[in-house]
Amino acid sequence: MRTVEDHRAALLALVAPLAPVTVATAQAGGLVSAAPVVARLDLPGFDNSAMDGYAVHAADLHGPLPVRLPVIADIPAGDPRALHVPRGSAARIMTGAPLPAEADAVVPVEDTDAGVSVVEIRARVAPGRHVRRRGEDVRAGEPVVATGTVLTPGALALVAAANVTSVRAHPRPRVALFSTGDELIPLGDEPAPGQIVDSNQLMLAELVRAAGAELAHAGHLPDDAEAVRALLADPPGAPDLVLTSGGVSMGAHDTVKEVLTATGTVEFVKVAMRPGMPQGAGTLGPRGIPVVTLPGNPVSSLVSFQVFVVPLLRRLAGRAGEPMLFEARAGARWSSVGGKVEYTRVEVSGGVAVPSAGQGSHMLGALAGANALAIVPASVTQVHPGDRVLCMPLLGAEAPR
Amino acid sequence: MRTVEDHRAALLALVAPLAPVTVATAQAGGLVSAAPVVARLDLPGFDNSAMDGYAVHAADLHGPLPVRLPVIADIPAGDPRALHVPRGSAARIMTGAPLPAEADAVVPVEDTDAGVSVVEIRARVAPGRHVRRRGEDVRAGEPVVATGTVLTPGALALVAAANVTSVRAHPRPRVALFSTGDELIPLGDEPAPGQIVDSNQLMLAELVRAAGAELAHAGHLPDDAEAVRALLADPPGAPDLVLTSGGVSMGAHDTVKEVLTATGTVEFVKVAMRPGMPQGAGTLGPRGIPVVTLPGNPVSSLVSFQVFVVPLLRRLAGRAGEPMLFEARAGARWSSVGGKVEYTRVEVSGGVAVPSAGQGSHMLGALAGANALAIVPASVTQVHPGDRVLCMPLLGAEAPR
Repeated sequence: MRTVEDHRAALLALVAPLAPVTVATAQAGGLVSAAPVVARLDLPGFDNSAMDGYAVHAADLHGPLPVRLPVIADIPAGDPRALHVPRGSAARIMTGAPLPAEADAVVPVEDTDAGVSVVEIRARVAPGRHVRRRGEDVRAGEPVVATGTVLTPGALALVAAANVTSVRAHPRPRVALFSTGDELIPLGDEPAPGQIVDSNQLMLAELVRAAGAELAHAGHLPDDAEAVRALLADPPGAPDLVLTSGGVSMGAHDTVKEVLTATGTVEFVKVAMRPGMPQGAGTLGPRGIPVVTLPGNPVSSLVSFQVFVVPLLRRLAGRAGEPMLFEARAGARWSSVGGKVEYTRVEVSGGVAVPSAGQGSHMLGALAGANALAIVPASVTQVHPGDRVLCMPLLGAEAPR
Repeated sequence: MRTVEDHRAALLALVAPLAPVTVATAQAGGLVSAAPVVARLDLPGFDNSAMDGYAVHAADLHGPLPVRLPVIADIPAGDPRALHVPRGSAARIMTGAPLPAEADAVVPVEDTDAGVSVVEIRARVAPGRHVRRRGEDVRAGEPVVATGTVLTPGALALVAAANVTSVRAHPRPRVALFSTGDELIPLGDEPAPGQIVDSNQLMLAELVRAAGAELAHAGHLPDDAEAVRALLADPPGAPDLVLTSGGVSMGAHDTVKEVLTATGTVEFVKVAMRPGMPQGAGTLGPRGIPVVTLPGNPVSSLVSFQVFVVPLLRRLAGRAGEPMLFEARAGARWSSVGGKVEYTRVEVSGGVAVPSAGQGSHMLGALAGANALAIVPASVTQVHPGDRVLCMPLLGAEAPR
């Protein structure tokens, strides 16, 4: 049996970060930059006031206070005039408004009588005080965002402020997914004997979105080798990754496994984990589209997505490193299979992890309240209260606290 | 000056969870349930096999092994037939396929010769082994999702498996946002003297999306009282919340403040925090739409969004409690203003928080790499290396690790 780490490495070897594209700044949220973003403007673009107040010559306030100065102008933000303030005078100025020539400091309005034609100033200021100098934050021509940066709201604010209208970034990975098995019926249909509702398609679509990827296609593969072969040779939606769920176990009717084994480009393995032992991965068709075949049990499918597909999507999207894990204390005793890594669905609260009831790989009931997977190593068969357990947050759940 | 906690409480008092709506299960990802979801089916819906193997009578395997049994049927998943397996015989059965009547256990294919007409069985099984009993996970009529549950991918899989096509949930809050100030120009235009690119509109739109809300409208308010009054009296996009940025300081041209002060339903206060001191909040128009007026400096605006708007959006969406904070160790020495809570932009890595360079409220340069805000209490003026600091993750950033 392959270890989780080895299988993850085998999957990561199938993909590289997606080729960068040019994206409008307003559309780039959540993407990863693929080239430095270079400022087109100084930030600030001009010397300006950091306060609502009065632009002055600091030297005019050296004598006894208060000082009364004539107000020779009123400068709102955006004022296009090339103003100047002679010695012995002041200009009313708003936050962000251009500092007039010659003035070298701003007195906050709170330190004045807020006069309109003459202002009484009650406090001294040092030269340069409450003045933001052109370019003190960013210089035009400087890189403001490095390659490999996640374009957060703050990073995009910087890009926009520097007047950069588009960025080079790795696009969002596009995922096509297929549930398999003739026993599945669409949500809302009445199941005949032996039939079950297809919950995996919906769950995997949600996981794809929660992982920041795009759903290129969601459909169902019949238990018909010819149809499966045709769909997988040229999957719809121009996906960067194909996911299937089901049909990869030891069964005589595991069509996906049968078809993809024949292509010779997909490997089926057992991974030393529970749930999620039967795994497969490889490439499809002439374009070599990566494919991951997830087990069909809903819980196995979810765990496999978290453990294998998330790192793969991160790599496609240009994100560095593994997804974040965190440590919690076990709040209960539970046993683990041993010899395999066990992913126990847990509810973490206040740093304490307690297993949700019903850990069978087909058991969804316990999943509604879980917010993490506790990763119990293969060497452990019993988790004791107080043990430190490494946990993986569940996609789409509230951050465990 | 008001404390951050008092201002947050004042904001939360303005809103209640949005009235529940009925949402198709496939559209409910990320919403919070507003009523219990009741299963329409037993899960599993019928006794079925947990393995690919052979359905048998456990009692037939009591003698010496191996045992050879005739294979009287081949049962794929979804098989609608009402089969039964007499004593002394076996049926080949796939994972998830209905267990035939009388059979009481499944022998995994690995413990057999995989025979098609006769199977040689090499291991005993206990009655009930590898059988999933009807309803052992969930019973029809039972609640499977409690009120107030975040509808994660796993929770929705359960809802779908229980054949529930729609849920009652709080809708995603709709947010209309307006930047203000005549000095702002759209991204890509060339700034004339005194003008700056409107980066707040884009940043706030990204923050709204990253917080899981919906952007109902994004626009700009001119520095014209009449126009502002008209737009805010009946904001476009049927929003549940209106955000403005800018125009709320001490300036003579703070149009938003002037207009909203006149309505009498919006309060402008100073909050003991840096950045983000000037804050305003209240309601608009006859519908009493909540409004939050954010400061115009981009960093102040971002911090205010994280500190005040996120809790408000959580409440509207029906989420319980405050957003998650985490603790890190200071990895550098930095000073704080004292007397106010300071939100220092930091980069947290390996549990260690280091301030990004350039902490001015107008300084965006340092924001690109930050992934959290360190919350430095008002009583602290100096953070020392090794100090424990409480941190707030930045929306849209990689989870700090």
